[in-house]
Amino acid sequence: MTNYRNLPKAEAESLYSSLMTKYQEYLSKELSLDLSRGKPNADQLDASAEMLTMPLSRDMCIVNGNDYRNYGILDGIKEAKQLFSDLLGLKAENIVVCGNSSLQLMYDSIARAMIFGNCDSPRPWCFEEGRKWICVVPGYDRHFKITEEMGFELVSVKMTPAGPDMDEVERLVKDPKVKGIWCVPKYSNPTGNTYSEEVVRRLASMECAAPDFRIMWDNAYAIHDFGREGDELVDIFAEAEKYGNQDRVLYFSSTSKVTFPGGGVAIVAASPRNVADIKRRMGTQTIGYDKINQLRHVLYFKNSERVKEHMQVMGAKIKGKFEIALKALSELNGLEIAEWTEPRGGYFISLDMLVGKATRVFELMKRAGVALTQVGATFPYGKDPDDKNLRLAPTYPTDKDLALACEILVLSVKLAALEAIIAQ
Amino acid sequence: MTNYRNLPKAEAESLYSSLMTKYQEYLSKELSLDLSRGKPNADQLDASAEMLTMPLSRDMCIVNGNDYRNYGILDGIKEAKQLFSDLLGLKAENIVVCGNSSLQLMYDSIARAMIFGNCDSPRPWCFEEGRKWICVVPGYDRHFKITEEMGFELVSVKMTPAGPDMDEVERLVKDPKVKGIWCVPKYSNPTGNTYSEEVVRRLASMECAAPDFRIMWDNAYAIHDFGREGDELVDIFAEAEKYGNQDRVLYFSSTSKVTFPGGGVAIVAASPRNVADIKRRMGTQTIGYDKINQLRHVLYFKNSERVKEHMQVMGAKIKGKFEIALKALSELNGLEIAEWTEPRGGYFISLDMLVGKATRVFELMKRAGVALTQVGATFPYGKDPDDKNLRLAPTYPTDKDLALACEILVLSVKLAALEAIIAQ
Repeated sequence: MTNYRNLPKAEAESLYSSLMTKYQEYLSKELSLDLSRGKPNADQLDASAEMLTMPLSRDMCIVNGNDYRNYGILDGIKEAKQLFSDLLGLKAENIVVCGNSSLQLMYDSIARAMIFGNCDSPRPWCFEEGRKWICVVPGYDRHFKITEEMGFELVSVKMTPAGPDMDEVERLVKDPKVKGIWCVPKYSNPTGNTYSEEVVRRLASMECAAPDFRIMWDNAYAIHDFGREGDELVDIFAEAEKYGNQDRVLYFSSTSKVTFPGGGVAIVAASPRNVADIKRRMGTQTIGYDKINQLRHVLYFKNSERVKEHMQVMGAKIKGKFEIALKALSELNGLEIAEWTEPRGGYFISLDMLVGKATRVFELMKRAGVALTQVGATFPYGKDPDDKNLRLAPTYPTDKDLALACEILVLSVKLAALEAIIAQ
Repeated sequence: MTNYRNLPKAEAESLYSSLMTKYQEYLSKELSLDLSRGKPNADQLDASAEMLTMPLSRDMCIVNGNDYRNYGILDGIKEAKQLFSDLLGLKAENIVVCGNSSLQLMYDSIARAMIFGNCDSPRPWCFEEGRKWICVVPGYDRHFKITEEMGFELVSVKMTPAGPDMDEVERLVKDPKVKGIWCVPKYSNPTGNTYSEEVVRRLASMECAAPDFRIMWDNAYAIHDFGREGDELVDIFAEAEKYGNQDRVLYFSSTSKVTFPGGGVAIVAASPRNVADIKRRMGTQTIGYDKINQLRHVLYFKNSERVKEHMQVMGAKIKGKFEIALKALSELNGLEIAEWTEPRGGYFISLDMLVGKATRVFELMKRAGVALTQVGATFPYGKDPDDKNLRLAPTYPTDKDLALACEILVLSVKLAALEAIIAQ
């Protein structure tokens, strides 16, 4: 492939013209394709079909004298705690099993800290003037939105292949106004990388000026490897305990991308002090979460090995999608107009283009009928300072639609790059 | 029956002695009975058994092209909105169908107002010094606890047979620091009465100094009549609209006591302005609630008529429990040492004894092995200023246990009253 950056202007113009002709052909097709949503497709959902056809009899719902159809058991059923414990390597007694949404648990954790403070807070966060929050970029828009809405100044820290730029994080947390950091430590959204042992250790051991600093450890893709060889993430609780910082970590996960998004089970895991604090506040908010759905998950999977087998099936399905997208992107190899990640799990590919060209690519795609995640969504306040990043979500479309959408994407990236080169 | 208050002291002493002998006999039985919990018993839960054995196939989950197993639809599935609309006489577009807990929706409404204010607030409630909240007493401890924890001063207003003492409520809401009121308008917890048309109209029309005043309208027992002849509750939205106060009302309900407590579906209903505000904030908190469980409820019941038939079955079961309790209490008729309510629906009986005697009755019951709801639970801060009210929850025990527990209750009420009379 020719490096576009070295193309003589005339050649660039001629190439642009021929690619534009090809692009025009797509326009006439009136397509409606979607690479925007980190959603499983129906085929993935079908893999859990029997969970919904499996009958739950009265007797199955009464376990050791506890009728899971009735009120009670604020922190979730014992059997679900054990399943998540086996699956994620967490202590069962440190897990609170909740409802259908881990995002809600994160929001509620911060909302509670806003109103009451957490168990280490000198005062409620709503009274902390100039409060700040660290956002690793590119990152997950829904995380950023929570802390934005709660009135935090969002401070960006760059993602490196090993995780957040820890020199910068360590510098920032010396400011007592910095109250926390959002992390998707495994197969990060959207970069797909996993935090290294060193990064996890530095997060666990760093000196934070705020006594109530919290790491929001959203392990959404904990078991979402594409194959048997997945990334390994170090146990942050074990690291934090070494430094006496175990109260710093709030760990979240869910089965949203194991069984059903919106119909799954979410957990929060934390140190005994944090769990006591969470349960005390949660006990005012609710009598308890949906134990029947917790039980449904337990009875369907039976044990953690079965969940892992299920995730092998899911991983293979998703891997196929990623291969289609990455094959299309390989057309850009050597052109020096784009870089992208090739994750071993998770849901996203992060695509960096030439500075200032993400918006243009988004527009070209939109005109051709392909929806992409909004430009800037992966940055605080929805603004990508370099206007160069796009998040690709390959799981939802059919294989055929995905291939076509990626073809148009590659074409759009080339067109946008050539426009920049011609304009120079 | 002899009015205890007219008993000569010697007769009172002799009666006390014989009743105490009877009480001692119960002590030797080492009973373990429970009148404390407003929980359905297993027999009620079994009435919805088929909802859990009914299979949900893939095709059933895909409705008009929407795959309810996947992400999306923040405000709940259309079919569930329609079901609640038909059932409760609310406009479908004013309903947000959520998760398993209406208490959580109430908590979240107030938590959001604390952090952001509601759509009429000049500032977030956390910055409102000396904020106050009206609690109708006796009332529901979990309501009171929410506003207590959120830092409101709880102001008690007496319940009358027609609802809250509205003269007092109208006086209180002239204070701009008074931000809201908790209401269980039908079969109120624990008094079992229903707000009259006049009370609803006065709540809807009263002049509130706080522009962001909210009526938390917890219609938990909307369809929980014991028979065909239930109490009628006036539509508060229709009343409020007449006075332009429709933004004042947040309406909550759930199927916790229709299908499964903790496994049901909860709603919030409100004016279009409030619904827009709720959805905007909720959209940051969650991607959506459990649509599969919403669908399960819709497919199981099919329509509102079937829900009503189901509630007739449930009502008959609960009526049986109330009859056992009320028959036992009738032993106290004419003694002038207790008053109690005889509701036509709901879950509770409110028992008033002689002033200062609730704690003594609670203790006598506890020693005899019968758990009651904590004395004072029905009042703000858990303190009954007259120490005379107890909440009885007759639904959970078996008929036999209930009869026995009520026998001991009647005996304990008599003993406590005689102690007061003897001590005079």
